[in-house]
Amino acid sequence: MPKIVDHSERKSHIAEATWRVIMNQGMKGATVRNIAQEAGVSLGALRHYFSTQHELIAFAMNLVKERVDVRINALLTLDLPPKQLITKILMELIPVDDHTMAEMEVWFAFVFHRKYVGDHYDEVDDGVYSAIHMLVGYLHEQGLLRQGLDKDNELERLYALVDGLALHAMLEPERLDKQRILRVVTSHMDSICNE
Amino acid sequence: MPKIVDHSERKSHIAEATWRVIMNQGMKGATVRNIAQEAGVSLGALRHYFSTQHELIAFAMNLVKERVDVRINALLTLDLPPKQLITKILMELIPVDDHTMAEMEVWFAFVFHRKYVGDHYDEVDDGVYSAIHMLVGYLHEQGLLRQGLDKDNELERLYALVDGLALHAMLEPERLDKQRILRVVTSHMDSICNE
Repeated sequence: MPKIVDHSERKSHIAEATWRVIMNQGMKGATVRNIAQEAGVSLGALRHYFSTQHELIAFAMNLVKERVDVRINALLTLDLPPKQLITKILMELIPVDDHTMAEMEVWFAFVFHRKYVGDHYDEVDDGVYSAIHMLVGYLHEQGLLRQGLDKDNELERLYALVDGLALHAMLEPERLDKQRILRVVTSHMDSICNE
Repeated sequence: MPKIVDHSERKSHIAEATWRVIMNQGMKGATVRNIAQEAGVSLGALRHYFSTQHELIAFAMNLVKERVDVRINALLTLDLPPKQLITKILMELIPVDDHTMAEMEVWFAFVFHRKYVGDHYDEVDDGVYSAIHMLVGYLHEQGLLRQGLDKDNELERLYALVDGLALHAMLEPERLDKQRILRVVTSHMDSICNE
């Protein structure tokens, strides 16, 4: 009987090896050969799942986003009051522990590689802008967005705040710990929401 | 009679060549040899001014910061009302034209090189945090910071907003043009300042 292989799990395993290679050696170390070695699979086996390096990198990056989506979907089941729910979702978009910090580092390495090396990965998007678009729309629909605030402007402001905090948490983790980030996000939510 | 050479001008000329090399080839292309070639000087001449690549990169990065400082100091002479002055200073920290976009690209390439390659450049700091620390302190002293706001929290929030906008302006310039950035910064200043 042939061995039963969980293809989805195998692909995730290779994607996670890709993250580790990017964290340790940067994007330029993320060759198919290095990734196969890190994952402990043969080049042939890796090529069975991903025919090109591009396809592998795109998959590994989309998996970062999917992991965040899973955590956000778990929050949505908790039946929290809107303001508290949105604050918790925003905190998922900012690296506040070793695990999310690793995701963010991999993501930023990828984004800057894409920018400076000029590789095209149009199929990859972190989804933060569209997530915040949805959250601000939800606040507005629920009548929670403070009167006089412009929805579109608040979207741009919150998006910049979240990515700015994410960037600083990654580059300056000594100053910007989880408590400090939560305080900033909470005070911002208070400032844009009705009592 | 020996030729009179303006050493400071010569060093700036080499630093600007360094920026161009970083923009075109990334940090890993920023070798002493490539930079000498871009600047149109001999390796020996370059070594006369900068004995190591590290020293040259540090100088080139500090020059980015100095150029921003010069523009901010020019604003300080304009005798503007505090809120308007601070808004203009914040806009100098966000890339809104080709010139400042180039500075930002060079700066981010350097910051990510430092983070991922692990080179130590303790002598280089973009000064944005300390600039915003000063600006929020000034608002507070002038009695312009809205009552109930925490100075320390507003510093962190404004710092994240400015760097988030800078990051997005660089990565998503089609959506985030100067007018849109100014609108976000102005609305944020209105929200933290007394009427």
